[in-house]
Amino acid sequence: MQHLNWIVPVVGLIGFLFAVVTRAQVIKQDPGTEKMRVIADAIAEGARAFLAAEYRVLVIFVAVLFVVIGLGTHSWITAGCFLVGSAFSTAAGYLGMSAAIRANCRTANAARVSGMNRALSIAFSGGSVMGMAVVGLGLMGVGTLYIVTGDVGVLSGFSLGASSIALFARVGGGIYTKAADVGADLVGKVEAGIPEDDPRNPAVIADNVGDNVGDVAGMGADLFESYVGSLISALTLGIIAYQTAGVLFPLLLSAAGILASVVGALIIKTGKNGDPHKALKTGEYSATALVVVCALILSRMFFGSFNAAFAVIVGLLVGVLIGFITEVYTSGDYRFVKRVAEQSETGSATTVISGIALGMQSTAIPILLVCVGIFLSYKLVGLYGIALAAVGMLSTTGITVAIDAYGPIADNAGGIAEMAGLDNSVREITDKLDSVGNTTAAIGKGFAIGSAALTALALFVSYAEAVKLTTIDILDANVIIGLFIGGMLTFLFSAMTMESVSKAAHQMIEEVRRQFREKPGILAGTDKPDYASCVSISTTAALREMFLPGLMAVAAPLIVGLLLGPSALGGLLTGSLVTGVLTAIFMSNSGGAWDNAKKYIEEGHHGGKGSPAHKAAVVGDTVGDPFKDTSGPSINILIKLMTIVSLVFAPLFLQYGGLL
Amino acid sequence: MQHLNWIVPVVGLIGFLFAVVTRAQVIKQDPGTEKMRVIADAIAEGARAFLAAEYRVLVIFVAVLFVVIGLGTHSWITAGCFLVGSAFSTAAGYLGMSAAIRANCRTANAARVSGMNRALSIAFSGGSVMGMAVVGLGLMGVGTLYIVTGDVGVLSGFSLGASSIALFARVGGGIYTKAADVGADLVGKVEAGIPEDDPRNPAVIADNVGDNVGDVAGMGADLFESYVGSLISALTLGIIAYQTAGVLFPLLLSAAGILASVVGALIIKTGKNGDPHKALKTGEYSATALVVVCALILSRMFFGSFNAAFAVIVGLLVGVLIGFITEVYTSGDYRFVKRVAEQSETGSATTVISGIALGMQSTAIPILLVCVGIFLSYKLVGLYGIALAAVGMLSTTGITVAIDAYGPIADNAGGIAEMAGLDNSVREITDKLDSVGNTTAAIGKGFAIGSAALTALALFVSYAEAVKLTTIDILDANVIIGLFIGGMLTFLFSAMTMESVSKAAHQMIEEVRRQFREKPGILAGTDKPDYASCVSISTTAALREMFLPGLMAVAAPLIVGLLLGPSALGGLLTGSLVTGVLTAIFMSNSGGAWDNAKKYIEEGHHGGKGSPAHKAAVVGDTVGDPFKDTSGPSINILIKLMTIVSLVFAPLFLQYGGLL
Repeated sequence: MQHLNWIVPVVGLIGFLFAVVTRAQVIKQDPGTEKMRVIADAIAEGARAFLAAEYRVLVIFVAVLFVVIGLGTHSWITAGCFLVGSAFSTAAGYLGMSAAIRANCRTANAARVSGMNRALSIAFSGGSVMGMAVVGLGLMGVGTLYIVTGDVGVLSGFSLGASSIALFARVGGGIYTKAADVGADLVGKVEAGIPEDDPRNPAVIADNVGDNVGDVAGMGADLFESYVGSLISALTLGIIAYQTAGVLFPLLLSAAGILASVVGALIIKTGKNGDPHKALKTGEYSATALVVVCALILSRMFFGSFNAAFAVIVGLLVGVLIGFITEVYTSGDYRFVKRVAEQSETGSATTVISGIALGMQSTAIPILLVCVGIFLSYKLVGLYGIALAAVGMLSTTGITVAIDAYGPIADNAGGIAEMAGLDNSVREITDKLDSVGNTTAAIGKGFAIGSAALTALALFVSYAEAVKLTTIDILDANVIIGLFIGGMLTFLFSAMTMESVSKAAHQMIEEVRRQFREKPGILAGTDKPDYASCVSISTTAALREMFLPGLMAVAAPLIVGLLLGPSALGGLLTGSLVTGVLTAIFMSNSGGAWDNAKKYIEEGHHGGKGSPAHKAAVVGDTVGDPFKDTSGPSINILIKLMTIVSLVFAPLFLQYGGLL
Repeated sequence: MQHLNWIVPVVGLIGFLFAVVTRAQVIKQDPGTEKMRVIADAIAEGARAFLAAEYRVLVIFVAVLFVVIGLGTHSWITAGCFLVGSAFSTAAGYLGMSAAIRANCRTANAARVSGMNRALSIAFSGGSVMGMAVVGLGLMGVGTLYIVTGDVGVLSGFSLGASSIALFARVGGGIYTKAADVGADLVGKVEAGIPEDDPRNPAVIADNVGDNVGDVAGMGADLFESYVGSLISALTLGIIAYQTAGVLFPLLLSAAGILASVVGALIIKTGKNGDPHKALKTGEYSATALVVVCALILSRMFFGSFNAAFAVIVGLLVGVLIGFITEVYTSGDYRFVKRVAEQSETGSATTVISGIALGMQSTAIPILLVCVGIFLSYKLVGLYGIALAAVGMLSTTGITVAIDAYGPIADNAGGIAEMAGLDNSVREITDKLDSVGNTTAAIGKGFAIGSAALTALALFVSYAEAVKLTTIDILDANVIIGLFIGGMLTFLFSAMTMESVSKAAHQMIEEVRRQFREKPGILAGTDKPDYASCVSISTTAALREMFLPGLMAVAAPLIVGLLLGPSALGGLLTGSLVTGVLTAIFMSNSGGAWDNAKKYIEEGHHGGKGSPAHKAAVVGDTVGDPFKDTSGPSINILIKLMTIVSLVFAPLFLQYGGLL
């Protein structure tokens, strides 16, 4: 079977090339009027400035970690894989974002010139660059390294590389986007009374940059990490249980997923689609159906039974269902968000309480779904089955990320239409695209959390193998201690990221106030605001504020593993996984619900825009901003990063673990 | 050694008699003017109405559970112990509350007639009835049942009885008090613009009843449960490890704790105390010192070494330190609360975000303290040591509950002084007593959580013994599933209790609005409001709304144990323990911090009362109300109740567990 190896990196390359070609097609489109181009250039410049600053810090971080890995694990091959993983994730992020920051004005222009269908097609194409780059480079990297090294053990280095970039992109990006958003809103909308996306607001460009940095690059890096993490975990568990077949099955399945995603993307791009929501769904479901067929064939081929395919299908289903539940809890079409909107009538306190209660309640079904997924996949194929479920859930990542990254592009397009003073009909089209984007973003977040949970769990099992633990006993006091510490780290990490947004937003508020004060011409429209200074504040703050939480995520498993030993570290990983998944779902859904409750009121319910209920809903939405776009998604990174650090440094813990 | 048995129930009886005598002394005091007596009677009547309604539901609940226990465990002795436990906890609650609802006006009157010292003495005496009733009846019950049955196994029934009452008192009481509080505040203070504790507010009596129902009876039942739970867990683990010595040590230590609490209470009551905070501290520390000495002597006597005493001391220290940390995070004297107050300047959203971040951050040190406690007590005496640490932490429960219950009495006294139109100097004294009470309440909450954590952990270990599990392996898929479900139950339970408050408060708001609308004379002061209808709304709502969360706490362990088996149930208990402790600390401390941030602003900072910052702080405080007084403390009950249900039904799981 080994001769099928080569298919894997080749299909990865196909995915990558699809991304490159799509990017070129996007760039070829007309970027619109002079005014639109100027605005788009400012956004692009801001995004590039953030990337450049991030890369400068990244290089040092990666270099230090490279040495630590080499010395700590005595395996410079692992350390080398780490470098490759960092490079591949960075490349995927760069490719995807460079397409997104060009697709925005071209989407707006298509809406202006050709209408809804063409605009959808361009926005989606822009997003699919990120989607296909993630899976293409991910599979190419894992496949090539597996062929070159012939050793699944060292691949964890690749995964750690992906995790490190995800830390920067998701946590840093999350702080960036919300500092800009909250800063722009509090001074612009509330104090100065100018509308959203008004070009007179000095933070408006930073806000639009944030959409790209946080929602495109951050989401892409997060799912790149899950994608390679679940794959590598399946390889390490698969080779133990089924030798080469156990390795080839997940690899070829992922290859099938890439091809299926390409087909789905083509359906969306070329179809005659009146309803954008339906168009996106059709593409996604087609890809899913194709993967299911391939899974059945491959499973029969490699194992002589359908069990492995069933585990994959379980994962896929759980992913789809979590997405659906997320929509139910966060969309204004259902009763949960309507209830939050209703509570806005008695003020902001009741809005906040009901949003928090909704978020906490919304954890129940996703957690039960994850449990059913674990139960079934384990019954079918053992621990390897859990990894296969994760691979299955992530097999359609290409199209999932594409649909997800489409949202911020449409959002940006709307911003550009507003700032460039385009006709209202343009804004209507982009608003429609954007509102679909909000739903897909919420679903994407649910999917990202679900996949992070299964990936972390699969990596955790690989960790136990690596440190040669056959049991991790809760009745061992050290394991209990680990569980408590792990759970606590989630809370501490969330507190840190929330505080970071709050500090960074404060700086932004001061800066916007300063500009309005010192140049009164800005508000009058006779003077130009200084966008660059706001961009620079967000950039600096994001990179400064992510240092402490990032350090904690890397250092905590090392300290606990060395002081209390591998069992306690196993407890820590489990504690942070369980608490982390819960907190991430809670925060994302509370935030999404507040956002849409506000929009629901703006549609004219409970007094509509400007009513007391609307004011209360705005408070909820502002509380929800760091919940859903910073702390919540960052927890995905925390749980995966801590697990992969533990896996990579397993040799260290075997030798020195348990000093106390 | 067996002949020392009799000391235990006798000392329990002494504690109980101390409570009875103190109660008689309190009642003997002058209840004050006619007007004060009328108000106090209304509060007392409301409290009795709640108790009567609660008892009607309780009788059915207890009867059903009695039969279920008898049939499920085939041990009618266990079921009998359950009845006794329910009866004892109910008796302690009744005794304590009947003293508290009389101490309030007498405290106000002492403040009017004799000044601070006398007022403090009466308020504290009122609280110490609850404190000594809890420990006296707790120890008497456990000691007597142990002598009579000679079987530590059946004692878990007693603990389950205590837990059932705690469920009603803490969850029901928590919903009661916040429905009344939020309802009274939102219509009275915000809409009608009348001050707190204004007799024109129809919900004002319900609000004052709530202080007694939630903070006196609820806290008492919570700690009664912890007290007997930790003791019984120490007995079950002690008899395995050290036979009779392992049983007698914790029993005699608890007896010593009761006597030490009596001494501490006498110091507080009779001392010349200028500063109430210092007086309470002196009493508490004296009791603690006495327990330490006794622990050393008993440990040497029973085990020939000090290790057991050290485990006890570790528990005591962890309890004291958690209390201190809680104070640092929730008192206006420290920078954390000041930072929340500062964030109020940019509006309610930033107030809410910073309060949530504070609460999440505040979990770190208490969790690390609990971990150090587990680590050391386990190193010293093994799993039995963890139970001893819990017993140690709770050995001074008598005085801790006394100090804690003092708070709501002082609060009530202030309310009565206000409503009866007493001189401002009286209100100044009660305000001073009340502000000390706020700090002790926050500390008491921290202590309740810490002790619930250790108790639940000790009971969990007993559970593992009872279902004959020597390991509970996280690498078993069923255990992971249990962990996820357990964690999720905490979130779901919190969501339910928050929603309950919100629904009940809504009803209260409607009723108060209706009264103001239909009888305009109420606000003019010419017509009397109908207090009873508000009391009845809170009562009905509390009992109705606690049904679902209560059912869940009892049913979830039974369902998981039967379907997935004892290991998965072990996972569930651990998951809910870890997540529960974190969430309880987070919610209690966020709530406490918002409360005191508001008070800090009211003292004149950031613009003082009525400023925009104050309005924002009021929103934070309202969000914090269900956090700190309903959901947070209720989680203590959830984690203990689920564990004790699992322990009691261990025989059932051994026989039928793991149907799937």
